[in-house]
Amino acid sequence: MTELKRNLKLVIAYNGMRYHGWQRQAPGIDTVQGRVETAAIAVLKHPLHVHGASRTDSGVHAEGQVANIRTADTRIPFEGLRLAMNSRLPKDILIRSVEAVPMTFDASSSAVSKTYRYRINLGRDRLPHLAGQVYHYWQPLDIDVMRAAAQRLVGTHDFRGLANSGDRRENTVRTIFRCDLETTDIGLDIFVHGDGFLYNMVRIIVGTLLSAGRGKFGPEHIDYLLESGDRHQAGKTISPDGLTLMQLFY
Amino acid sequence: MTELKRNLKLVIAYNGMRYHGWQRQAPGIDTVQGRVETAAIAVLKHPLHVHGASRTDSGVHAEGQVANIRTADTRIPFEGLRLAMNSRLPKDILIRSVEAVPMTFDASSSAVSKTYRYRINLGRDRLPHLAGQVYHYWQPLDIDVMRAAAQRLVGTHDFRGLANSGDRRENTVRTIFRCDLETTDIGLDIFVHGDGFLYNMVRIIVGTLLSAGRGKFGPEHIDYLLESGDRHQAGKTISPDGLTLMQLFY
Repeated sequence: MTELKRNLKLVIAYNGMRYHGWQRQAPGIDTVQGRVETAAIAVLKHPLHVHGASRTDSGVHAEGQVANIRTADTRIPFEGLRLAMNSRLPKDILIRSVEAVPMTFDASSSAVSKTYRYRINLGRDRLPHLAGQVYHYWQPLDIDVMRAAAQRLVGTHDFRGLANSGDRRENTVRTIFRCDLETTDIGLDIFVHGDGFLYNMVRIIVGTLLSAGRGKFGPEHIDYLLESGDRHQAGKTISPDGLTLMQLFY
Repeated sequence: MTELKRNLKLVIAYNGMRYHGWQRQAPGIDTVQGRVETAAIAVLKHPLHVHGASRTDSGVHAEGQVANIRTADTRIPFEGLRLAMNSRLPKDILIRSVEAVPMTFDASSSAVSKTYRYRINLGRDRLPHLAGQVYHYWQPLDIDVMRAAAQRLVGTHDFRGLANSGDRRENTVRTIFRCDLETTDIGLDIFVHGDGFLYNMVRIIVGTLLSAGRGKFGPEHIDYLLESGDRHQAGKTISPDGLTLMQLFY
């Protein structure tokens, strides 16, 4: 058994388009975790696991995924390790940084909050060079109504009405610190910052805000959703295309 | 035999990353031409061919590829046709416009010139969200030397030293109207405008300008290359990643 003496924190960016999500699955299924582990094992030369902060779904991207690796090697030049791993990774995955952290640090359980961005192209036509990285929605939207609805999500609530079944964790209470809409050159970015997210929660939040923006219901409907926990009254689970995990906070 | 009464000019944008180039090949090989033909046949409901202006290679992108379709249908609402085709195309291909042109118009032979852009990321790290769409070159470059070398390409020359063998056309004389370098947020864009290009010519031009920028030779080496026609003295054929067909002129 290799003695693990050091804990490394990695910040990782990727274009998730061609991966079956972050989490390693059966052999032959291409995942970001699998790719990063393979690169880390090649460089550190012992068996290891890469523990990710967030199990991003198939097609979801990251600017600042965080992972930690416990390693036997205590004399690692971090920048050399970073470059060596990057040279073994495909061009749609990048290790942004490597640093030493205490052995108790765990990328997932040590995180106190995270931010996602959902990017929408509101133009007439899709943008082929951003295929898989933005969601195309060409119908007119009332952005003010969407902003008002977004504000009602902020706070500590039971979000079970804004998550898909299959999430077996008992506690569905989460705190949203921020849910902001920013207009961009191509349309709209929606930023959500929270202490944690249920399964598909960000994508359902975005689907629900789009329904509000289309006039299907008013901002006050958000209060009803949070009180009733009725998934069927929320918007649809929108495509993963526009979704990017931006940052983890510790 | 369907009587073809109308000729339609299409302007097409695509992210070429996951295609085996523009030109239709054997069944089962995914190409942009194949995709556009399938969509056009579904909408126009008769056999047809899509004639492209430029056979972009595997991995090369387009903002303004041009193609023409001769069709039996004389009562086509162009915007309806465009939207119907786009709804049948994958999200990395977009028909930008459809218009009627004279029956004699041929997207390839009627073209008088075209512009390509080659996009380079000069930053320390690759950019995962632009994977396949920019070329990463992290070594320092002398941009002034590259600009001076680029200017020596402008004019009417025999470009056989800047093309890959396999091109069997006898005439290797082409005219370059413009070869400009523009700095960007992430590095450098190289624009080349010419009346035609030999096989891999833009990619070899960029490889040669990078060699000049690295100090392997001075701008005057371009004159030698054009006079000698010696492919071995030029730079390498650079990756298709950064290459985009921008515009066709008629």
